[in-house]
Amino acid sequence: MKIRIVTPIVTQDFVTPENIREYSDAVGPKHEVSVVSIERGPASIESEYDEALATPEVIGRIREAEQEGFDAVVINCFGDPGLKAGREVVNIPVTGPGEASMHLAATLGHRFSVVTVLDNVLPMLYDEAAVYGVESKLASVRSIDVPVLDLHLDLDDLAAALVNESVKAIEDDGAHVIVLGCTGMTGLSQAVTEGLAEQGYEAPVVDPLIAAIKLARTLVEMDLRHSKKTYPYPPKKEIVGYNV
Amino acid sequence: MKIRIVTPIVTQDFVTPENIREYSDAVGPKHEVSVVSIERGPASIESEYDEALATPEVIGRIREAEQEGFDAVVINCFGDPGLKAGREVVNIPVTGPGEASMHLAATLGHRFSVVTVLDNVLPMLYDEAAVYGVESKLASVRSIDVPVLDLHLDLDDLAAALVNESVKAIEDDGAHVIVLGCTGMTGLSQAVTEGLAEQGYEAPVVDPLIAAIKLARTLVEMDLRHSKKTYPYPPKKEIVGYNV
Amino acid sequence: MKIRIVTPIVTQDFVTPENIREYSDAVGPKHEVSVVSIERGPASIESEYDEALATPEVIGRIREAEQEGFDAVVINCFGDPGLKAGREVVNIPVTGPGEASMHLAATLGHRFSVVTVLDNVLPMLYDEAAVYGVESKLASVRSIDVPVLDLHLDLDDLAAALVNESVKAIEDDGAHVIVLGCTGMTGLSQAVTEGLAEQGYEAPVVDPLIAAIKLARTLVEMDLRHSKKTYPYPPKKEIVGYNV
Amino acid sequence: MKIRIVTPIVTQDFVTPENIREYSDAVGPKHEVSVVSIERGPASIESEYDEALATPEVIGRIREAEQEGFDAVVINCFGDPGLKAGREVVNIPVTGPGEASMHLAATLGHRFSVVTVLDNVLPMLYDEAAVYGVESKLASVRSIDVPVLDLHLDLDDLAAALVNESVKAIEDDGAHVIVLGCTGMTGLSQAVTEGLAEQGYEAPVVDPLIAAIKLARTLVEMDLRHSKKTYPYPPKKEIVGYNV
Amino acid sequence: MKIRIVTPIVTQDFVTPENIREYSDAVGPKHEVSVVSIERGPASIESEYDEALATPEVIGRIREAEQEGFDAVVINCFGDPGLKAGREVVNIPVTGPGEASMHLAATLGHRFSVVTVLDNVLPMLYDEAAVYGVESKLASVRSIDVPVLDLHLDLDDLAAALVNESVKAIEDDGAHVIVLGCTGMTGLSQAVTEGLAEQGYEAPVVDPLIAAIKLARTLVEMDLRHSKKTYPYPPKKEIVGYNV
Amino acid sequence: MKIRIVTPIVTQDFVTPENIREYSDAVGPKHEVSVVSIERGPASIESEYDEALATPEVIGRIREAEQEGFDAVVINCFGDPGLKAGREVVNIPVTGPGEASMHLAATLGHRFSVVTVLDNVLPMLYDEAAVYGVESKLASVRSIDVPVLDLHLDLDDLAAALVNESVKAIEDDGAHVIVLGCTGMTGLSQAVTEGLAEQGYEAPVVDPLIAAIKLARTLVEMDLRHSKKTYPYPPKKEIVGYNV
Repeated sequence: MKIRIVTPIVTQDFVTPENIREYSDAVGPKHEVSVVSIERGPASIESEYDEALATPEVIGRIREAEQEGFDAVVINCFGDPGLKAGREVVNIPVTGPGEASMHLAATLGHRFSVVTVLDNVLPMLYDEAAVYGVESKLASVRSIDVPVLDLHLDLDDLAAALVNESVKAIEDDGAHVIVLGCTGMTGLSQAVTEGLAEQGYEAPVVDPLIAAIKLARTLVEMDLRHSKKTYPYPPKKEIVGYNV
Repeated sequence: MKIRIVTPIVTQDFVTPENIREYSDAVGPKHEVSVVSIERGPASIESEYDEALATPEVIGRIREAEQEGFDAVVINCFGDPGLKAGREVVNIPVTGPGEASMHLAATLGHRFSVVTVLDNVLPMLYDEAAVYGVESKLASVRSIDVPVLDLHLDLDDLAAALVNESVKAIEDDGAHVIVLGCTGMTGLSQAVTEGLAEQGYEAPVVDPLIAAIKLARTLVEMDLRHSKKTYPYPPKKEIVGYNV
Repeated sequence: MKIRIVTPIVTQDFVTPENIREYSDAVGPKHEVSVVSIERGPASIESEYDEALATPEVIGRIREAEQEGFDAVVINCFGDPGLKAGREVVNIPVTGPGEASMHLAATLGHRFSVVTVLDNVLPMLYDEAAVYGVESKLASVRSIDVPVLDLHLDLDDLAAALVNESVKAIEDDGAHVIVLGCTGMTGLSQAVTEGLAEQGYEAPVVDPLIAAIKLARTLVEMDLRHSKKTYPYPPKKEIVGYNV
Repeated sequence: MKIRIVTPIVTQDFVTPENIREYSDAVGPKHEVSVVSIERGPASIESEYDEALATPEVIGRIREAEQEGFDAVVINCFGDPGLKAGREVVNIPVTGPGEASMHLAATLGHRFSVVTVLDNVLPMLYDEAAVYGVESKLASVRSIDVPVLDLHLDLDDLAAALVNESVKAIEDDGAHVIVLGCTGMTGLSQAVTEGLAEQGYEAPVVDPLIAAIKLARTLVEMDLRHSKKTYPYPPKKEIVGYNV
Repeated sequence: MKIRIVTPIVTQDFVTPENIREYSDAVGPKHEVSVVSIERGPASIESEYDEALATPEVIGRIREAEQEGFDAVVINCFGDPGLKAGREVVNIPVTGPGEASMHLAATLGHRFSVVTVLDNVLPMLYDEAAVYGVESKLASVRSIDVPVLDLHLDLDDLAAALVNESVKAIEDDGAHVIVLGCTGMTGLSQAVTEGLAEQGYEAPVVDPLIAAIKLARTLVEMDLRHSKKTYPYPPKKEIVGYNV
Repeated sequence: MKIRIVTPIVTQDFVTPENIREYSDAVGPKHEVSVVSIERGPASIESEYDEALATPEVIGRIREAEQEGFDAVVINCFGDPGLKAGREVVNIPVTGPGEASMHLAATLGHRFSVVTVLDNVLPMLYDEAAVYGVESKLASVRSIDVPVLDLHLDLDDLAAALVNESVKAIEDDGAHVIVLGCTGMTGLSQAVTEGLAEQGYEAPVVDPLIAAIKLARTLVEMDLRHSKKTYPYPPKKEIVGYNV
């Protein structure tokens, strides 16, 4: 099985070698994971605007992956930019961390909260939950007020901030499950779980990109693709200015 | 008052001189309406894919409108491409036909149906309704199976197809109000209303672009802009490949 | 265009000359606005009981307006007394500030809160939101604990109280948009907007009566009337004790 | 226990002696039931308009009942006119057939349908369900197209029409329980149950007025009254033209 | 009328003679109430696990009650163990305190809260509300952190704890009505009502078992049984290890 | 990884050797799958009653699996008997085909339908969807009217019946995705997919047990367990008649 991960930003060092090991581990030993980023778009995604500028090339990368023989594509951003448009242009599974992790979290407990980077994206993530149909399981979306590109600066501080906001989600919003709301937080679910445990909270913490990779693998193994009734191929027509 | 209408496709003759008269009438005599289209993007919008490729330049057009002193922007497509991203980059009202007409229709009767172009866009329009919060007022979304760029070929046939599908919406889905689900249907609300009346149905028929223009005018007059808590300015960052 | 505003209370000086100027401004220069009140009913509306006693004569005023050649009627109370019954008896648009402002607010941001007069009317306004289908966009309804007829006593105090409660709506309930929940607050949206800005909050503040007037104008201009499938003429029958 | 039933119409022979026996049976042997109608209002209730004209005197009758020492009031109309306003003016339970029967039906099976008199009242009854919070249990509202005052003309025809429409509710809308949607249908639940059984359908059929009487008795016996936080006494104020 | 109350636990002294008097009072003088418990199952119900172990014998007790000529069965636990399965095996009404009291509370005010024994059962009771279709009327579920079998230890302390948590439900969650969330609290609704009144809160307090008994009586009197379309007899088949 | 599959019925030949191969394939080569059934309970599950009688021993089997060192448990029935109770008693993941497949299906398209065995279980499956929070994604639940233990009699007939009912779900209910609603249909998803394709429908068909196995594997690999805030250990207490 070959899985392509599309990182929808132009920042080259966003995905670390350690990340790639985690992605590979998620798919398993015999399978191939490859990561590509985009060349046109934003440095990070923290707004509807950023998403909009990332999406055209994400779609291109998804089509390219199918042409190169990949079995599935995973979009490396919690906002799932290009998820629906990308599914239209191919006939292989395309998964997104937002959708995959919210549905996974919905199976893990009564209500879940998403803890994300900035207040900017809160309405966007509530909209995602509405479209994905999991609104009644969503306790809240909260932010730690750290921009995406600063997430890596101090991982201990980051974990502490995530624990802090997760405790508020549990105490004030009734969350029983925590979803990390940015794929730049990959690798931190264990630290947040432990941080919560130190404060007496036993809550599963979902890493969204890993959830999306696992979902992609499951779909490939079950020979499932997204419904072409929901995601039909776009009608052929003139497109100006894009090589897609 | 100066209102800019952004037609998010590269098809130049999509907006007819007659359309422009209708738009001007909608804003009123002392005001200015100007229409621009985009240079990079699809010929028409009939998929998530088309929307995604239209959006970057729509955002640019919205920002440009504010810089040129326009008081509001209206997006000329029922799918509202760039509506949320566009609101982030400016501090003037930005309205969309999908959102404006659905909320207007919700005030006109018990339930409304949207009658649109192709089956392709049905899930997209149900998602719009979910995000706009009007799901409980939406009876159904139906299509007449005519592509956007063929809408103008025979206006009598088009009106007949819209009436036909509207009758099904009324009889089978419980619609009390009809929303035309494509701005390429502008100018047809009266013909559909009359066609329905001939078959014994008295239902208001909403022209979505006119609804969006009226909403833009109302917001300007009331000195209202979209909430910056929902649509904050995007964080400054490197953007590659876009002049926006 | 001639728009009739029906103030559903017997208090004669509730609508000030300054208010009438605002209403006229809202419709625009070439149009006519006239305001009538009722002769039988309550001094103000602050309960289901007050609404019930106001409604019969409101309906009469609505029918009278159509007979006198008015193009639309606006009910001057956030509780929208007589809105649905009034629509049944005429074939011109009838709009209400509660419905018009809630749907307008729903287009302005993620969630809105209504800030109204007394705790008494909270359940009534939550019920309105349920019937209008905007429940998922409503963050909360809050009150400033000032009776309708005391609203005019000190406009600075009133604005301060509205700002104060709006801040709670924003901070505690997640509101991104504020709706003034009584038409006795007409004229204060700017002061509340500024008061919020002084405390660092940038939120649109919707004046509900102006929203209803704008909606009425839009419906007249678009030649739309409320669905007769939702609001059929009442069956003819004996009515005792009412000259309606 | 003394229960007052308020028939909110001016038609004097709407309640038959046989009906009164049924009401008495519903409360039980040692208790008193008395029925009053109104002197100002409509001959029957088949619209929001009719409801609005009935409500003021219904409120008066409710207050009068408390003053005369009644323990509870039941409103004799499925539209529940004056239910909420009436609860505000007294401190005894006030029940309505719409609310009581919908909640009762919700406990009897997966989904229920209401079968009522005329299409006119369909939106009104859907609104009731929304306000009462039972929308997810409501399969549909259907009508037999018979005006209230013609219901008594031929009881066999009436039962047949109710059976006919109930079968459609079961087959087409997924109803498992039927609610008779007009108190003019009191006494027919058994005939409809049997008519359904003859066609092979085993579905409970709820008589709404009896449900409301039973609920009133239960509240009196349990010493429960409606929450004064939801239904506070209306603020004292000038009321013109009503002796309430 | 003969009503059988099934206490789904093996604890013999859970139902006191005083309780039985209350149950009898609830049904009325001429009727018979008898209480049985189970011989296999848990000592009390405070988890899904306890419910699961109680249910098989509850079903047996329900079938037995029908065979012994009882007219209805009431399950004596707020979690309603065996409610749906029990309805399948008989053709007499079976009611549960959770369902009965939540629907009753929904008619008493804007929103209700349930105050129950332990945090353990909170998700279970939220699930009940979802299945019963009253989620939009439910303000919250709260617990007093007292196990079921300790409820009787100090009734004054218990009432004080219930008042304390009810005040939080009113102040913080917007409850207008309180439901006692365990049938081990039977007999305390008056004390909680008075305790709330002492602190200035006027809210109805619903005793759930009494609500379920009243509902059972109403169903018997109205000759209603639960829909066999929702609760068909289970298909005949081999059952090993149960004498049911 | 060791995964235990608990078949909650006493029928020994329900799981075929071919089934076991499919389960093993689903987990992957290096892992162990073992299947156990129960000794006390029903021959098949087609009612709430059957579920209730299966559940106690299912819980025992779940606890046993943890004691025997299994990493996760999968319940082999679409009704998910014992899912929530079982999670309470262990600290390893427990998944169910109903929950797992509905959330998976929700990610595959706009709406999904479940096609199950008998009408009896329809309300039960709608309740499942409500509790799992996926109601807005569920188009319908339909049945083929074949008992569980007859499913294996003629696999071609079975596939044809599933295709037939799936077409109705797509055409009449708006389904874009099909979920097989019984784990006795394991192995048929490909045949149903092909049968649909022959009739011109391209819809993913989800095998629920495989979905549950994949979810279990994912949870083990991600080191996730169900929230102990939702599923706390049951309080210790006397249990009579069960060796659990």
